[in-house]
Amino acid sequence: MPLVRINLSNSYSAEERQIIGDTVYSAMVDIAKAPAGDKFLIFTRHADGELIHPAAAFMGMEYTSKIVFVQVFWVAGRSTDVKKAFYRNVADTLNEKIGIRKEDVWINLVDCAREDWSFGNGDMQYAPK
Amino acid sequence: MPLVRINLSNSYSAEERQIIGDTVYSAMVDIAKAPAGDKFLIFTRHADGELIHPAAAFMGMEYTSKIVFVQVFWVAGRSTDVKKAFYRNVADTLNEKIGIRKEDVWINLVDCAREDWSFGNGDMQYAPK
Amino acid sequence: MPLVRINLSNSYSAEERQIIGDTVYSAMVDIAKAPAGDKFLIFTRHADGELIHPAAAFMGMEYTSKIVFVQVFWVAGRSTDVKKAFYRNVADTLNEKIGIRKEDVWINLVDCAREDWSFGNGDMQYAPK
Repeated sequence: MPLVRINLSNSYSAEERQIIGDTVYSAMVDIAKAPAGDKFLIFTRHADGELIHPAAAFMGMEYTSKIVFVQVFWVAGRSTDVKKAFYRNVADTLNEKIGIRKEDVWINLVDCAREDWSFGNGDMQYAPK
Repeated sequence: MPLVRINLSNSYSAEERQIIGDTVYSAMVDIAKAPAGDKFLIFTRHADGELIHPAAAFMGMEYTSKIVFVQVFWVAGRSTDVKKAFYRNVADTLNEKIGIRKEDVWINLVDCAREDWSFGNGDMQYAPK
Repeated sequence: MPLVRINLSNSYSAEERQIIGDTVYSAMVDIAKAPAGDKFLIFTRHADGELIHPAAAFMGMEYTSKIVFVQVFWVAGRSTDVKKAFYRNVADTLNEKIGIRKEDVWINLVDCAREDWSFGNGDMQYAPK
């Protein structure tokens, strides 16, 4: 059910994008307990000047043109601890695997309701509670 | 007031995109009772590898590169039955009109408040209740 | 913390896009009291036919291909008056500075929670209240 929008520079290679997508997906399944196989991601690639970040340090962080915006729409209910672990895992893994600066990993979560999804076939797959 | 984001392969033609937009718009007006004329849609076209879906069947569904992601931001308050009818109508109509596989019609709804919209002129058109 | 998505025609110049981004950012800081420096914006440029608006007048407004969609994800809690002032400031300023028709300034706000953000480093910068 999560829908993930990932916006990043077109200087990232196809292979890097795949690792980014796999990393976010794995964190959703392993940490946030999304169902296995629930992998729906939209990558939008950007030219210079289309992704704007603070020019100076913000809250002690500095950003580069390699900033990766990850926005996850999912069903409400994840705890604060799960969200913290999700952020930690994504940033650490992207840094380890392909050297993205942790400061450049930017994540926003948006809660939706169970009835707000149709994964295909015109059905509402999740009954509201 | 709905804002609709539609992300799809650049293999869809301009005519197909128009039908997709008209279909979603008609379902919003006819089923979800959006005001007539309230048609604001953003299409983003994607190259191969930018729209990621499960590689294997997920919840019994299989997806192709023709997957169409429809995300609707609108004012909260639609019932579960209305949302179900909305999903059904969009998937069935796109299948009938231009042969999109129903499994490839993917929809997410995001609820906003009445005061969260300015349709132009710098005004808040809907007063909060 | 706000994440701003701006979708607009590719007929806007780089300089115009910069003014648009700076205008939205200034309104967030000056009016909506976002922290100074909190400037994260994603511009997506669109070809003809990708941004759909009502063909006829809607609620008394007419739109052109120069429509600018601004969608702001931020932490919930802004008052209705603040939101009104935000809309007013963005539309008026864009009109004054680069002549965008006020009817073509379209804004949607999406509320998120405090714990729904990681601005980098894998941290949850804002503790939930």
